Amino acid sequence: MSLALAPELQVTRWFNVSGEPPTLEKLRGKVVVLHAFQMLCPGCVNGGLPQAQKIAALFPPSDVAVIGVHTVFEHHAAMTDVSLAAFIHEYRLKFPIAVDQPGDDGPIPRTMAAYGMRGTPTLILIDRGGLVRRHAFGAEDDMRVGAEIAMLLG
Amino acid sequence: MSLALAPELQVTRWFNVSGEPPTLEKLRGKVVVLHAFQMLCPGCVNGGLPQAQKIAALFPPSDVAVIGVHTVFEHHAAMTDVSLAAFIHEYRLKFPIAVDQPGDDGPIPRTMAAYGMRGTPTLILIDRGGLVRRHAFGAEDDMRVGAEIAMLLG
Amino acid sequence: MSLALAPELQVTRWFNVSGEPPTLEKLRGKVVVLHAFQMLCPGCVNGGLPQAQKIAALFPPSDVAVIGVHTVFEHHAAMTDVSLAAFIHEYRLKFPIAVDQPGDDGPIPRTMAAYGMRGTPTLILIDRGGLVRRHAFGAEDDMRVGAEIAMLLG
Amino acid sequence: MSLALAPELQVTRWFNVSGEPPTLEKLRGKVVVLHAFQMLCPGCVNGGLPQAQKIAALFPPSDVAVIGVHTVFEHHAAMTDVSLAAFIHEYRLKFPIAVDQPGDDGPIPRTMAAYGMRGTPTLILIDRGGLVRRHAFGAEDDMRVGAEIAMLLG
Repeated sequence: MSLALAPELQVTRWFNVSGEPPTLEKLRGKVVVLHAFQMLCPGCVNGGLPQAQKIAALFPPSDVAVIGVHTVFEHHAAMTDVSLAAFIHEYRLKFPIAVDQPGDDGPIPRTMAAYGMRGTPTLILIDRGGLVRRHAFGAEDDMRVGAEIAMLLG
Repeated sequence: MSLALAPELQVTRWFNVSGEPPTLEKLRGKVVVLHAFQMLCPGCVNGGLPQAQKIAALFPPSDVAVIGVHTVFEHHAAMTDVSLAAFIHEYRLKFPIAVDQPGDDGPIPRTMAAYGMRGTPTLILIDRGGLVRRHAFGAEDDMRVGAEIAMLLG
Repeated sequence: MSLALAPELQVTRWFNVSGEPPTLEKLRGKVVVLHAFQMLCPGCVNGGLPQAQKIAALFPPSDVAVIGVHTVFEHHAAMTDVSLAAFIHEYRLKFPIAVDQPGDDGPIPRTMAAYGMRGTPTLILIDRGGLVRRHAFGAEDDMRVGAEIAMLLG
Repeated sequence: MSLALAPELQVTRWFNVSGEPPTLEKLRGKVVVLHAFQMLCPGCVNGGLPQAQKIAALFPPSDVAVIGVHTVFEHHAAMTDVSLAAFIHEYRLKFPIAVDQPGDDGPIPRTMAAYGMRGTPTLILIDRGGLVRRHAFGAEDDMRVGAEIAMLLG
């Protein structure tokens, strides 16, 4: 089995970032947790985003970088940056959140397409060397995710 | 103690209504449950709206009318009708939902103001005669709400 | 449809009762909620007993009497009165709890048999006149139970 | 900081073990998770034991050994082996469970005393070399526990 290098994020705008925005390349050396979500996806709101917040609270930022990616692939007019900004404020999300770049043809945004994501929520774990070590679509168990991140740290 | 007659809803648009839209006046004879919410209010998404759906599923529509009221009083540009339509679709809300009319001066919409609501979620129970019998701001216990509605029916 | 008069409780011992123990006959005029349980039944511990506590906290004791019935029909040696006393203490149950009388032949205790209960948890609602108005085996929704008790009060 | 070697378990009886009972010494090379509980402790029933079951399901038994320890320090007559056997059956616990030896003088059993446990639930993580790496009294977060076990494995 060969692992794929994580494609770089393609971003139109960042939230919760002051100064230079992060890139996966600059994050080499850390474990990176990508949480791809849509603000109107119930499974993201109830499960995926609380889990991402928990990861950000549990692991030291010097070792683990949590990044949200707003991968809107449906209801585009309903989930604009204006709405997302209010959503981030109301749900008190503190980790950096990237808005995925619209696709050239079709509803799927670019980062979502580059990773071959099937929908939201999607969790991607990237090791210190930049390789994708886990790609999970749907609800993931907290204990399992905690163990997987720790394995990549160890 | 004297009870107030429930002020009529002031609505710019209805969702989940085909044909003639409901009015409180036309609903006299039924118990009416108003659930005032904002689509980006976490307490509404996690608590109030699931409770409203439960009420709509438990009590026969011939006796109890459940009506959502989208009372946007903050982040107005983030919670437009376009966004609300997608929200209703994704969260599979089936009961009639009214969009509250913007206020003349200030952020508080008209129905919200007429009822003196302090925020969202707010639950209002109206008896068969059109009187407000309960006004609750914040999370309400399912068992208590079930009992209160049944008392108004009995 | 004709409703059955609730059979009198057959009790070897009461917990949480000081003075004269209750009987269904003496409770006429109140709505009575019987919660039949076994202390080692997971569905009782996780669902039924917390619901019974909620009922006892929500409705005034002058109108609604909540009574637990320990209907042991399996693992009899494991659920003795000594064990039940510790269970009641640790789970902070405050409503009166009756220990059902052992059956003459077979594992089913007498009150359980008289009501035709199929297992635990079982919820029995008895109206002010002493008639069984609801008999539910398994998990029951809080909102529904709240509404049913209120209907019997109304 | 120096870590303590985990004291050997002092056991009167095992449940869910066929053949030779485990000892910490024989488990050297594996990570060992001790979950100390009392069958009538609500925090154990609702939190600690489900977590122990989750650990046993998530991690391969060749790497992680989950062991329950019934450390009865109160209500001794209420939590006998007969009651524990029924409890294990009803809650479908599958991992090995040791009954802690009664203390010589006082209510605290021997393994509990040797570890200096303050109550139940207590979670003890022992590394492959037999050292106690974590001692936690009370509810523990699943994600954190998953990460800690993985760290000891890595």
